[in-house]
Formats: sequence, C-alpha cells, structure tokens
Amino acid sequence: MVFLFSRRPRRTDVARPKPRREPVAQVDRVDLAELTPDLLPYLGQAAYVQLALFETLGHAVSVAPTAASKVAISRVAALALAKHHGLAAEIKRLGHEPGPVMAPFAARIDEYARTTLGADWYEMLVTAYLTAGLLGDFQLQLAQGLSADARTRIILLLSGDDGHALLVDELRAAIDTNARLAPRLAMWGRRLVGDTLLIARSSLTNISDSHRNEARLEPAFTELIAAHTRRMDSLGLTA
Amino acid sequence: MVFLFSRRPRRTDVARPKPRREPVAQVDRVDLAELTPDLLPYLGQAAYVQLALFETLGHAVSVAPTAASKVAISRVAALALAKHHGLAAEIKRLGHEPGPVMAPFAARIDEYARTTLGADWYEMLVTAYLTAGLLGDFQLQLAQGLSADARTRIILLLSGDDGHALLVDELRAAIDTNARLAPRLAMWGRRLVGDTLLIARSSLTNISDSHRNEARLEPAFTELIAAHTRRMDSLGLTA
Repeated sequence: MVFLFSRRPRRTDVARPKPRREPVAQVDRVDLAELTPDLLPYLGQAAYVQLALFETLGHAVSVAPTAASKVAISRVAALALAKHHGLAAEIKRLGHEPGPVMAPFAARIDEYARTTLGADWYEMLVTAYLTAGLLGDFQLQLAQGLSADARTRIILLLSGDDGHALLVDELRAAIDTNARLAPRLAMWGRRLVGDTLLIARSSLTNISDSHRNEARLEPAFTELIAAHTRRMDSLGLTA
Repeated sequence: MVFLFSRRPRRTDVARPKPRREPVAQVDRVDLAELTPDLLPYLGQAAYVQLALFETLGHAVSVAPTAASKVAISRVAALALAKHHGLAAEIKRLGHEPGPVMAPFAARIDEYARTTLGADWYEMLVTAYLTAGLLGDFQLQLAQGLSADARTRIILLLSGDDGHALLVDELRAAIDTNARLAPRLAMWGRRLVGDTLLIARSSLTNISDSHRNEARLEPAFTELIAAHTRRMDSLGLTA
C-alpha cells in the first residue's frame, strides 16, 4: 500500500488565491491545497498520469484524420511528455529512479487509461482535454501543500502550457461541421468524470479518518467539477 | 505525383567525409550526397517519417513491460518528436504549412509503419532502432545535397541525439535474459530491411533515367545496408 499523504493533514501557511465566491460557512471544510502530500509518491503518481496522457495523445496522433491534425496533436503530446520528464527529474533530484516510484500507480492508471481512451479520434481528443484538465487541476491544488522548495518548481511545471487550445480548436471545428458529434461527445465527456474523479480520490484514501475527509473534501471536488463544466462549455457541449 | 528531386542531379561542391575504404573504380557511381533534393518535399517526407517513428515509439511506450521501460522509451519518442518539430519549423520557414507538405507522403509511410510496427514490445523496439537508423542515414546523406543555408541546420537537426543507446540497452538486456528472442528478432530485423529500403527508394523514383540511376545508386544503398548490419551486430543479432 502506498501512502500518497502524510496521515495527518496540517494547515499550511501558503498564500492561496482568493476564492471567487464567498466561502461557504462550513467549519471543517478542507481544501485540497491544505493537505500535505508526501512528495515522492505525489511525484510518482503525477508523472505516471502525464505518461498515460502522452500515450492517449500518441494513439490520437495515430488515428488523426489529416497530417495537419497529426502535427497539432503531436505538439500536445510533446507538452505532456515534457511535464512527465520534468516530474521524473524531480524524482531523480530526490535520489530515486522514476520507474520504481511510478510503479505502484501503474496498474490502476493503465486500467483507467484503457477504459477512457475513447473509440475514435474525437473521443480521444475529448479524453485528452477533459481528463488532463481535471487531473491537472487536482494535482496543481495538491502541489500547493508541498514543501516550499519543490512546490514552486512543480507548480510552475504543472501550470505550464498544456496545448489545450489546439485540442479545443480541433474539436470545435469537428463539432461545427458535424452536428451529430455534439450529443455523442457530450455523453462521453460526462462518462469520463466518474472514472477520473475515482483516480483523483484514490490518492486521498490514506488520509486518516477517510470517511470524514471524504465529506469535508466534497467542496474541493465540486470546484473540480465546475472547472470541468467550463471545459465542456468551451467545446459547446452540455455537461 | 510529388517530385522529391530536381530532375537533373548535379555534382555539389560539398566537402564530404572521407570514405573508409578505397573508392570503387566505377566512373558513373552516384552518391546520395551528390543528388539535389527539392527542399520542400524533402522536408515533408523527412518530417512525416519522424512523426511515424514517434507513433511507433508511442505504441512501444504503451506496451512497455515496466514503468522504467516506459520512461526510457518515452525519452526516445520525445527525441523523434523534437526532430519532427524541427523539420516542421523548416517547412514553416519556407512559408508553408507542415500538414499539406507532408500529406503526399502520408499514405505510403502510414502503410509502411503499419506493416513494420511489430507484434510485441521487442519487435517494436527493433523497428524503432533499425528503421530510424536506416532512414536517418538516408536522409542525412541526402541532406548534404541541399542548398547551403538549409543544409547546415538540417544536418545538425538530423544528426542530433536519437536516444538509440536507450533502445540498444533495453534490447540487449532482453536478449541476454531470453535466448529464444535472438533468432526471432534477427529474422524481424532482416525482414525490415526490404520495406525500409523501398521507402527510401520511393524518394528517388523521379530522378531522370531512373533505371540507370538505380544501378549507379547501388553502392550508396550497399553502404546503408552495411550500417544496418552494424546495428544488428550491436544487438548481438545476425544480419
């Protein structure tokens, strides 16, 4: 069993961005940013997620309808791979090899990637966009609880260009020219949320008193879903 | 029909590396480096070959037996993609979009990549190593006939790190621990030569008096095959 988190979440003194809305009056609410992930397994999981994303994008490149689309998607793949390599470098900085550190997360994420790959080019792009967005937001929030030295580098790395504008361009163009795509991709987008949140939640199961934390973390997950809905909107799809 | 070459090959005044052996006394022998490829289709084909190689490596990452192997092969994939993007940048420098410039080569190279992908992880790595080596040598020799401005940049780009040491390490380790792999992979390596040389030759079919040139180019292809044999040797396989 790998523990992604110290068993005792503590409040950190990180300056966090102001919430957009008035905070809900809920005493024991926990933000993801207040948790303190153990650095090494955090990096292992995040690095493996980027690798899985790269594989999804690689499949998408293979089935792309035109050479121009291949070029566009290969750029997105390169960006995911660069993030993976950046996270792998952080693992090496701690004196570990990326392979063994990622290994405990491989089976679950491989299975997740297999079931969420999508049946064709369009679904693959939707997967690459929505799951990278959701897991990226999640990882970025958790990164705020890391120790100061690694935190800055990792936040910079994860918040770097993800090439998603290219995915949105490709998808919007496809949806605009084929009206029947929208309902199918909307359904696919909704289907992805459950599996993706399960991957995110699987990181949190080792926090002490997990049941209470589940409830306390609900608002944090609600925010992740709100961002997901905005991504669906940007594709012209109903979440 | 796309013409990769000017119809009239001319001798260039490029300083070329000394041949290792005494040159064969053959008056009308033509080196690949003496041909003058038309820059734009040359770039289109070379860029698409790197993209296809990236796809092969992406498949290999997907079926890699361990997370550590995924990391290693993903680095090789990143290097192929970097070469692709470098070549795509050269296409843009000429005021063209990479997609349409690559498009005429897509069907043939896609089919080639499909038939040479390999049935498992080991065959995929052999393909990535041997075909990238052979086509890379071929493209590098042709690049010497390009106009001076582009030539330097493209030779630098194509001769940059290809990560093949990582592929050789993975394959040698596998072959050393499983004796039954060697004959199967040796056969696969031999099988790849024919299809790969056909892709290379397909670039040359538009040179005037192609039949005579076929014969005159034979020594150049013999050199490509010699380098292929050295690669087989480095894996401990019989060519």
